[in-house]
Amino acid sequence: MQPHSNSVPSAIREEDERRHWDYHYDPVGMTPGTLVIDEDASPTELTLIDYNSENAFRKTLRSPEEAANYLDTESISWIDLQGLGNEDVLNRLGSVFHLHPLVLEDVVNVPQRPKIEYYNDQLLIITRMVMLTSKHNEDTEEAPKFASEQLSFVLGKNYLLTVQEELNQDCLDPVRQRIRQNQGLIRGAGTDYLAYALLDVVIDAYFPVLEEYGEYIESLEDEVIFTPSRQTVQKIYRIRRELMSLRRSIWPQRNNLSRLVRDGSELIRPEVRVYLQDCYDHVVQVLDILETYRELTANLMDVYLSSVSNKMNEVMKILTMVSAIFIPLTFIAGVYGMNFDYDASPWNMPELEYYWGYPLCWAMMIAIALSLTYYFWRKGWFESTVTKVPKT
Amino acid sequence: MQPHSNSVPSAIREEDERRHWDYHYDPVGMTPGTLVIDEDASPTELTLIDYNSENAFRKTLRSPEEAANYLDTESISWIDLQGLGNEDVLNRLGSVFHLHPLVLEDVVNVPQRPKIEYYNDQLLIITRMVMLTSKHNEDTEEAPKFASEQLSFVLGKNYLLTVQEELNQDCLDPVRQRIRQNQGLIRGAGTDYLAYALLDVVIDAYFPVLEEYGEYIESLEDEVIFTPSRQTVQKIYRIRRELMSLRRSIWPQRNNLSRLVRDGSELIRPEVRVYLQDCYDHVVQVLDILETYRELTANLMDVYLSSVSNKMNEVMKILTMVSAIFIPLTFIAGVYGMNFDYDASPWNMPELEYYWGYPLCWAMMIAIALSLTYYFWRKGWFESTVTKVPKT
Amino acid sequence: MQPHSNSVPSAIREEDERRHWDYHYDPVGMTPGTLVIDEDASPTELTLIDYNSENAFRKTLRSPEEAANYLDTESISWIDLQGLGNEDVLNRLGSVFHLHPLVLEDVVNVPQRPKIEYYNDQLLIITRMVMLTSKHNEDTEEAPKFASEQLSFVLGKNYLLTVQEELNQDCLDPVRQRIRQNQGLIRGAGTDYLAYALLDVVIDAYFPVLEEYGEYIESLEDEVIFTPSRQTVQKIYRIRRELMSLRRSIWPQRNNLSRLVRDGSELIRPEVRVYLQDCYDHVVQVLDILETYRELTANLMDVYLSSVSNKMNEVMKILTMVSAIFIPLTFIAGVYGMNFDYDASPWNMPELEYYWGYPLCWAMMIAIALSLTYYFWRKGWFESTVTKVPKT
Amino acid sequence: MQPHSNSVPSAIREEDERRHWDYHYDPVGMTPGTLVIDEDASPTELTLIDYNSENAFRKTLRSPEEAANYLDTESISWIDLQGLGNEDVLNRLGSVFHLHPLVLEDVVNVPQRPKIEYYNDQLLIITRMVMLTSKHNEDTEEAPKFASEQLSFVLGKNYLLTVQEELNQDCLDPVRQRIRQNQGLIRGAGTDYLAYALLDVVIDAYFPVLEEYGEYIESLEDEVIFTPSRQTVQKIYRIRRELMSLRRSIWPQRNNLSRLVRDGSELIRPEVRVYLQDCYDHVVQVLDILETYRELTANLMDVYLSSVSNKMNEVMKILTMVSAIFIPLTFIAGVYGMNFDYDASPWNMPELEYYWGYPLCWAMMIAIALSLTYYFWRKGWFESTVTKVPKT
Amino acid sequence: MQPHSNSVPSAIREEDERRHWDYHYDPVGMTPGTLVIDEDASPTELTLIDYNSENAFRKTLRSPEEAANYLDTESISWIDLQGLGNEDVLNRLGSVFHLHPLVLEDVVNVPQRPKIEYYNDQLLIITRMVMLTSKHNEDTEEAPKFASEQLSFVLGKNYLLTVQEELNQDCLDPVRQRIRQNQGLIRGAGTDYLAYALLDVVIDAYFPVLEEYGEYIESLEDEVIFTPSRQTVQKIYRIRRELMSLRRSIWPQRNNLSRLVRDGSELIRPEVRVYLQDCYDHVVQVLDILETYRELTANLMDVYLSSVSNKMNEVMKILTMVSAIFIPLTFIAGVYGMNFDYDASPWNMPELEYYWGYPLCWAMMIAIALSLTYYFWRKGWFESTVTKVPKT
Repeated sequence: MQPHSNSVPSAIREEDERRHWDYHYDPVGMTPGTLVIDEDASPTELTLIDYNSENAFRKTLRSPEEAANYLDTESISWIDLQGLGNEDVLNRLGSVFHLHPLVLEDVVNVPQRPKIEYYNDQLLIITRMVMLTSKHNEDTEEAPKFASEQLSFVLGKNYLLTVQEELNQDCLDPVRQRIRQNQGLIRGAGTDYLAYALLDVVIDAYFPVLEEYGEYIESLEDEVIFTPSRQTVQKIYRIRRELMSLRRSIWPQRNNLSRLVRDGSELIRPEVRVYLQDCYDHVVQVLDILETYRELTANLMDVYLSSVSNKMNEVMKILTMVSAIFIPLTFIAGVYGMNFDYDASPWNMPELEYYWGYPLCWAMMIAIALSLTYYFWRKGWFESTVTKVPKT
Repeated sequence: MQPHSNSVPSAIREEDERRHWDYHYDPVGMTPGTLVIDEDASPTELTLIDYNSENAFRKTLRSPEEAANYLDTESISWIDLQGLGNEDVLNRLGSVFHLHPLVLEDVVNVPQRPKIEYYNDQLLIITRMVMLTSKHNEDTEEAPKFASEQLSFVLGKNYLLTVQEELNQDCLDPVRQRIRQNQGLIRGAGTDYLAYALLDVVIDAYFPVLEEYGEYIESLEDEVIFTPSRQTVQKIYRIRRELMSLRRSIWPQRNNLSRLVRDGSELIRPEVRVYLQDCYDHVVQVLDILETYRELTANLMDVYLSSVSNKMNEVMKILTMVSAIFIPLTFIAGVYGMNFDYDASPWNMPELEYYWGYPLCWAMMIAIALSLTYYFWRKGWFESTVTKVPKT
Repeated sequence: MQPHSNSVPSAIREEDERRHWDYHYDPVGMTPGTLVIDEDASPTELTLIDYNSENAFRKTLRSPEEAANYLDTESISWIDLQGLGNEDVLNRLGSVFHLHPLVLEDVVNVPQRPKIEYYNDQLLIITRMVMLTSKHNEDTEEAPKFASEQLSFVLGKNYLLTVQEELNQDCLDPVRQRIRQNQGLIRGAGTDYLAYALLDVVIDAYFPVLEEYGEYIESLEDEVIFTPSRQTVQKIYRIRRELMSLRRSIWPQRNNLSRLVRDGSELIRPEVRVYLQDCYDHVVQVLDILETYRELTANLMDVYLSSVSNKMNEVMKILTMVSAIFIPLTFIAGVYGMNFDYDASPWNMPELEYYWGYPLCWAMMIAIALSLTYYFWRKGWFESTVTKVPKT
Repeated sequence: MQPHSNSVPSAIREEDERRHWDYHYDPVGMTPGTLVIDEDASPTELTLIDYNSENAFRKTLRSPEEAANYLDTESISWIDLQGLGNEDVLNRLGSVFHLHPLVLEDVVNVPQRPKIEYYNDQLLIITRMVMLTSKHNEDTEEAPKFASEQLSFVLGKNYLLTVQEELNQDCLDPVRQRIRQNQGLIRGAGTDYLAYALLDVVIDAYFPVLEEYGEYIESLEDEVIFTPSRQTVQKIYRIRRELMSLRRSIWPQRNNLSRLVRDGSELIRPEVRVYLQDCYDHVVQVLDILETYRELTANLMDVYLSSVSNKMNEVMKILTMVSAIFIPLTFIAGVYGMNFDYDASPWNMPELEYYWGYPLCWAMMIAIALSLTYYFWRKGWFESTVTKVPKT
Repeated sequence: MQPHSNSVPSAIREEDERRHWDYHYDPVGMTPGTLVIDEDASPTELTLIDYNSENAFRKTLRSPEEAANYLDTESISWIDLQGLGNEDVLNRLGSVFHLHPLVLEDVVNVPQRPKIEYYNDQLLIITRMVMLTSKHNEDTEEAPKFASEQLSFVLGKNYLLTVQEELNQDCLDPVRQRIRQNQGLIRGAGTDYLAYALLDVVIDAYFPVLEEYGEYIESLEDEVIFTPSRQTVQKIYRIRRELMSLRRSIWPQRNNLSRLVRDGSELIRPEVRVYLQDCYDHVVQVLDILETYRELTANLMDVYLSSVSNKMNEVMKILTMVSAIFIPLTFIAGVYGMNFDYDASPWNMPELEYYWGYPLCWAMMIAIALSLTYYFWRKGWFESTVTKVPKT
């Protein structure tokens, strides 16, 4: 039953390097419940935060078995596992928490599609958290970047187990601080409220990422209309791909939260459902914004195409103006460069012998050039070629 | 627990300057229920309108606590709070009205997605009102502009609390006037009818905005077909973005009204549901029109692309006509400019010695020019280049 | 409570002049139930048709009160009001028929979105009827035109009140004739059957309009492929806009009929529901056809864009052929127009002194021209430029 | 009550000549139940096939009344009416079978949208059968053609009435043969199984038509990529129109079959529902394929547009190469064709007097031509212009 | 009842050669239940795997009747039939397993749309398995290829019958191995778990195929932006067609699994439903990825069109630069090639007699050339023509 890792994606990567297929898949025919450990996975670390309305302490656990002592106490126990590199620890964790083999598999074989599932007296919630790693750079016009990581919850009666792909990188510190400093209701509420607080933090972390993308899209607008280039279309393509990726990770969370609010599980008390409803509203807002961005970038692509056509139009206008003005003149010059023999006939190019011949020829050429220039000016061909970027 | 405002959008702005992400979001990990006060927010003002079928009076309140006296009376009390700049007042308001922390948060941390929510004996309705700030200018061809502002309702048994983002800017005066002048049913009806009357006013205010956009789209049509320019595509892009923004604020209100009509809450009596149904019909009409405009502007973009192609086509035609006519002529002139030595052979350019050589040469060139001109005229190439704007 | 008309659309207009926003909207804050009378509205006329299986008579009523005598009789009373210009009559009509203020408003403040609504013992049905006003003109290639008008039904136990926007313009004559001549079942059936008969006539009137549009779209096909011009794209844009407008007026009627068939209202007996089902089938057919036309015109736009590209391609081909053939020839002529001094060196343009120099030069030029022509002929560039319209 | 036929479509036509509006519509205001007889309709013929598990016979009936004798017998009676030209026969048929006036109308006033309807103890099924009339011609590249015809079923307890638009043209012979030769279960089963068998034959007849279109679309692919022309876009447009027409006739049949399988009508026994489920699966397959074709042809249109652009690109390349190479050369030739007087100054065109002047001039021109040619070759401009059709 | 095969598709083919219509269809009017045997079908082979928690053995059966002995035993019997070439065997199999004629038909007349169907005490599941046959070749840029094959399950109480189109080609070996080596739960679980295990293997086999397509799409991106050619559009078209084909085979499996999880069939026990839910999640992931690829390739097509326009733009720029620079120069050369007779008038081309005439002329020409070059450089026309592929 040896698990072999075939191109299992390494845990936290920037979305940019992430491939599209993106979900973990088992090697064909793998026994259900097999854990696939990535070689590059972070080492595993277990932390316990145990609190009730009076006390709260934090402790690093050396083994999963150590956690067992805290599960049945009255106080709330939040066990946070970070890093998926140690199969042995993971398996022992599974037996300490009595996890169904499929739960353990979903939690370990990342990435999974966000979902919720009920297993007897446990509730499995799989979410995906995003973290902004680099802002949109206004000077180099580089796109914002974000990292994403799976965060799984196993919610029991008196405990909450969370599993993160990666060590020391999450957006949960505000919740830890609220527990330590006894801010708000959290210390007096149950595991369900803790799960809500964490979910809320995870969802809220999408907003700064979206804000960066919003600004980036806005900064792309002028580029698309006034200085479209090959890089522009690449940028639009990339941004669309990343919005798709964001949407794919947030979309299932909408259904999950909706189910959490409506389904009658005794693990989540009615007074917490009100808060989850609020969290649900935030997910809907995220999707709203994503949908708007999708449309905006689709429109940008249209605008890009029209901009390229416009640029070609201007190139054509220059060519046409130059050609239309000089080709007739060159023809006239050509005519008077002909060698018809005046001696053979008085009809043969008598102009060449006129006293005002050459000046008249120039006059004619200048007149033609001016009238054509006026014609093009009237058609408005000069305008669009001049103004390039209206506002900088 | 000091709230720090990270780019919280200032209350009333023109849609033009508004960024796309648009919704308020909490700083990641903020304790639920925290109020985020924008530094630029308007100062807070409280107004009470208290009425029954016989009397009605209006009073500016100095403190939220003053409102408490009116809440339990038999008469209808409408407390209107404008401006979100004073956290202390807002918090005290919360305790006077026994608002759930999440209600207060939704009402204060603007903008929120429109929604309705039931809290024990209160009904929270969040809507968004729009106000036309500048009409479509036919001469400068500038787009219409509108401002938008969150309006929240907290509907209780004998009172209605409304909260507006901004001071002295709303579209509710007609309702105030109907109360003062005892027009229609409003003085004899309950708080639910008052809430309906206000909702109705909010929805109806979308129509003049839409009408302006309709006229603007119509005025864009001719521009797109006959004088397309880079500004045109920008205008279409902007109008699409603003329609999206309008749609995003009206779309959730459709569901809200539908729920108000159908859900059985004792706060809204059956006879008022009939009126809410009417209000719902208006929202559907607004969405109908918005959907039509979306399609129209999408079509406009197509038309724009075809217009640019058409313009390029005409540029090409001019180039081709000039080239096709003069290049052969220049060739002929070039031929008779060759220096083959007639003295060396009688076959060397004897034409140059002909008596009618030069006139014949011209005759040939004119014949070629005329026949090509006729050819292009037959192909209809002259027509489209002439007519520019059929109707002005 | 004086109603002021702000750009209330005049009653019957051709769809062409109709603006897009199209629905009536109340001035912001108007008291619900206020009637908005358009200055240009037709004068109001009331007609009664009263019948049972034995007798039938038609009578022009001078006042709404006159109708009251017929409402409670056993015979079927169809009161038809045409023209919305007289507010007094409308208000008195409202009290005679005990109309809910919102019903009166929906019936008078046209146009409304088609809908059905139940009010105690009355059923309000709002539909929109279309009338072909000018056929598609095959010679001038003008689009068909249609007028549209709101028709409202108030169905009571023994009476049917219909309200039309406009005087003397409807498509209901066939029903009047069937009553007068006692054709079919109508004289023996109830008000519900009468309502059905009128609805059926209204729906069936969409078909001739659609047929005209179908023929018009077909006639556009050849134009799009073979003689695309700026007018073409305008025509497609207009036709799409009008199809949208038709769809918007028929789409809600589908839901209405579906509700009429399914909802259990005692005003409509089961045996009439069978007929309404038939009517529903017709609405679905209309929508089917409209959907097909939408797709066809969307495709036409694609075809148009490709046609414009094709035309540009042909222009380019002509330019390229002329240039590619004559530019090399002109170069050769240019070479032998150079003035290198043969006397200075025997290498300086000895060709000019050859006995066969000039003829050889021509031979070379002709050979080049022919081979290039052959090359372009092989590439098939001549074909597409010749055939213009394959079938006329 | 004389029915007047206004452009009622003649019964069987090739889809090519068929107009888009396609459905029968009543003249506005026609009394419901009126039969509209097309002048060109086929004469009417009635055939009876009566069978039980032991015997089966076929008989041509001279009048509808003759059928009455067979309706109440225990054996299964299949009455097949072909041709809708005889109103008298149709009316008498209606009374023999006790058809509801709306049933008779739907059956006679073709074409109707496929549907099913329950009338007391009868079940009306309206379907549309298609017949391939000409295959896709690989040489002339002509599209496949198909005819279509309405087939209506009236299913009663012991009889099945089928009505066809046209005489002697159907795809039902296999069923007739199975009855005659007692193949399969048909002779031992009831009218519901007979109806299923006929429906199955009708659905299965769509597959060969689709197969032809599939092959045609495949043959269009190469044309689109390698030899796009105006005819191509017309072909794609036509094929899309015909796929739409097919989809419109099969789509409602999906719902019909789904209802037949699920609705509890005692006319169809459970054991036959299993077979109808199979038939339903086939309809879904047909729709699956149609949907795929729709997407394929939409993609084809995109590919076509890109092909046209590619072709234009190649034309441009030829023009640019010829121009870029010869225009500089012509300039050089022009320079040495100038007449500056060497006698007036030693600086005036001394090159003309050089011993190697002319050869050097040629050398320069050849060098320029070669280097430009190399430049274009390096840019890869020669490749795409060469290969035209990679595989034939 | 002789079945005749009209273009019945041969069993396993690469998707590339597969036609689009793809589903098996009966010859019109074929008796339901008729088996259509393809001439090229593989010979038929029957294998039995019988196991319980203690023992497991594998046996090749010589006849279907041999299987009968194992069906009623307590142990789990998996009968696997490969190859559909032997009608006699198939018919006998049908009677041994008491298959409904329609089941046998669905299993034999491949390909069918994936579906599930309940028949008394049997459950029919039709799926489609895919196998990667050739990977995406990075050098030749060839697309990945996959084969697909129908796999049908007939699930009974103690047995599972699987039917494969083809001999010796499946992805089920891992399950066989797990049975032989007693890995995981499989030996202790029932037929429902066996069916799940096989379904899981079938679904998981889609992932490697998708991964190949993902990499291929990624490799196409650069090609589309930097080296677009006619082959590129063909590749995109093909990939879209194949994604459609994959989607068509996986989409119905989503509904099937959803029904298996929810429908209450006693053949599948609750504890196995948990596993099927997991399998369902995988199908949803596959569809997620496919949807993403669809959008990505649609975007690629847009990008392609813009790339072609960009390329044309560059061609135009070269043409325009060459023309704009040399045409004026040629004109000047033409002027001084005119033959106006200086002897006839001192105004006739005195420049030709200037001492510095020719050098001045050159100076002027160089000045013009340089200033135009500078103009184009300022407009940025040189840049885009230089950089071709930014990263390799």
